[in-house]
Amino acid sequence: MLPVAIDAMGGDHAPAAIVEGARRAAVEIGVPVVLVGRPEDLDPLRGDLEVVAASQVIGMDADPGSSVRTMKDSSLVRAAEAVRDGRASAMVSAGNTGATMASALLRLGRIKGVARPAIATPIPVPGSTPTVLLDAGANAECQPQWLVQFAQMGAIFSRERYGIAEPRVGLLSIGEEPTKGNPLVKETHALLAAAGALDRASARFVGNVEGRDIMTPEVDVVVTDGFTGNVALKTLEGGMRSLVTAVIEGLSTTDVADAALGALLPLYTTLDPDQTGGAMLLGVDGVCIISHGSSSATAVVNATRVASEMVQAGVVEHLRSAVASA
Amino acid sequence: MLPVAIDAMGGDHAPAAIVEGARRAAVEIGVPVVLVGRPEDLDPLRGDLEVVAASQVIGMDADPGSSVRTMKDSSLVRAAEAVRDGRASAMVSAGNTGATMASALLRLGRIKGVARPAIATPIPVPGSTPTVLLDAGANAECQPQWLVQFAQMGAIFSRERYGIAEPRVGLLSIGEEPTKGNPLVKETHALLAAAGALDRASARFVGNVEGRDIMTPEVDVVVTDGFTGNVALKTLEGGMRSLVTAVIEGLSTTDVADAALGALLPLYTTLDPDQTGGAMLLGVDGVCIISHGSSSATAVVNATRVASEMVQAGVVEHLRSAVASA
Repeated sequence: MLPVAIDAMGGDHAPAAIVEGARRAAVEIGVPVVLVGRPEDLDPLRGDLEVVAASQVIGMDADPGSSVRTMKDSSLVRAAEAVRDGRASAMVSAGNTGATMASALLRLGRIKGVARPAIATPIPVPGSTPTVLLDAGANAECQPQWLVQFAQMGAIFSRERYGIAEPRVGLLSIGEEPTKGNPLVKETHALLAAAGALDRASARFVGNVEGRDIMTPEVDVVVTDGFTGNVALKTLEGGMRSLVTAVIEGLSTTDVADAALGALLPLYTTLDPDQTGGAMLLGVDGVCIISHGSSSATAVVNATRVASEMVQAGVVEHLRSAVASA
Repeated sequence: MLPVAIDAMGGDHAPAAIVEGARRAAVEIGVPVVLVGRPEDLDPLRGDLEVVAASQVIGMDADPGSSVRTMKDSSLVRAAEAVRDGRASAMVSAGNTGATMASALLRLGRIKGVARPAIATPIPVPGSTPTVLLDAGANAECQPQWLVQFAQMGAIFSRERYGIAEPRVGLLSIGEEPTKGNPLVKETHALLAAAGALDRASARFVGNVEGRDIMTPEVDVVVTDGFTGNVALKTLEGGMRSLVTAVIEGLSTTDVADAALGALLPLYTTLDPDQTGGAMLLGVDGVCIISHGSSSATAVVNATRVASEMVQAGVVEHLRSAVASA
């Protein structure tokens, strides 16, 4: 397999944590990797990993569009080019999410027939496989036809990533009835309910779902526009953080703290964003994994593993087939 | 004070749990109450509480608009009429939310100048006062001017309900920058940022907030359209339920279960929807408290207490003043 190109300069803890994660991915899971970034920063850290030189770094808060257009020698743009030019099999970045999307979109292009790429984010579900939520923020405004493609692509991702043979796809709304919701949801519902809409993705439309269904085993893929999806994702992240913090505080003052917190460790691991392996930008013509900004080395290992798995599963080809009918 | 009219027929556990809650509210917190519903169902339960007779019951899943129009002798419609006619000070229902809104809107009417009423739902924040989220589902589609009124009304509710002198109002979006979000958010941001927008509500606009801010002490009121608000609310409810269940399961198999779960009891109480006292429909010309469908007797006690407090605080008059400039 061609190496996975890792943007060594992106993320709150770059480059140290990113490079450490890349090295661990190479050793622990045997995935070939190549670092992309400033040689002078990476040489002291890289060990025997190779470096694709890139002299610029797009800041975490930089404007995505203009920075990708003007910073042609940035690590993000060079990582995307490595995939485009067949020097890497996939790209991974914990950097500026908007700039990661823009780099991938501009350098890899879209899969033929895809109207808009979408960010597919796995939401952990205790005791079950994660629910794939998309679009988690790529497109603040959407058209119904785009959401149908998100459903098709999300189903492919659910199957290849979590082994769900016939993913159950729900449309996020504010009631189960097809008549509930805003115009986008009502129109999308009709399109998804039409015969054959998800046939090429081997998926099943289960109708509208509500926010409370996302973190349950009742649905495998939840489709929504990027505004609503991003709000839902961040609301859940904030709620989880608030509750986990309160649970730890509540237990840590007791004399059973060690035993109690130990018993919750598996749950904590399930919810740990470093364990999910990152989100995938579905619809660009290549594998692009978006890891969260605060990624640790472990997050990079998991993101690299997912990138490698998605390459080996041929997910881009499957996406191409699934949307070909659109 | 005039009695609080309690829809005795609405809710998953009606009428028994509702009547029990009403009786406890009368005894424990000294709020005068009157039950609304079918005398034959209520007579065996009501003790010395009075009953406003209503022969019909709007089902939890009934279509709100048509049921309120056709079921003129329903407990919900009669409860709203009791407020309108000056026989009750407020209404409380754990029944069909849409029908509660429709009854209140049709019988009480809107406060002069209010474009659309909104559901204001308190979101518990561990260690702090709840955040008021609105609109939590009354209006799936909104205009920017309506959201400005939601901000004004939510601030009044936050002040009267939680004693926040100068509530911090955030606009729910997918990034802090005013340029992020969908067109509704961008237009609303400009209106809320304009000088004087929240002056009559004695509130302060703190700009865009993200989903992760809702359950933190950083903001007192979060404004959004009813689609996004309902998704955020239910996503949070589902996530909390999932996590609380997993925590209880994780701890209950240990030999420190009693001590650990006991230490988490205050947190559990904070998050218990029966404790929040329900949501308030802001913008109708009267106090209308919407309790969740699975309300227990304790939930009814708390909803009745909140109804009484909102009446005594003169919240409808404050709302009238706050939106008068719109």
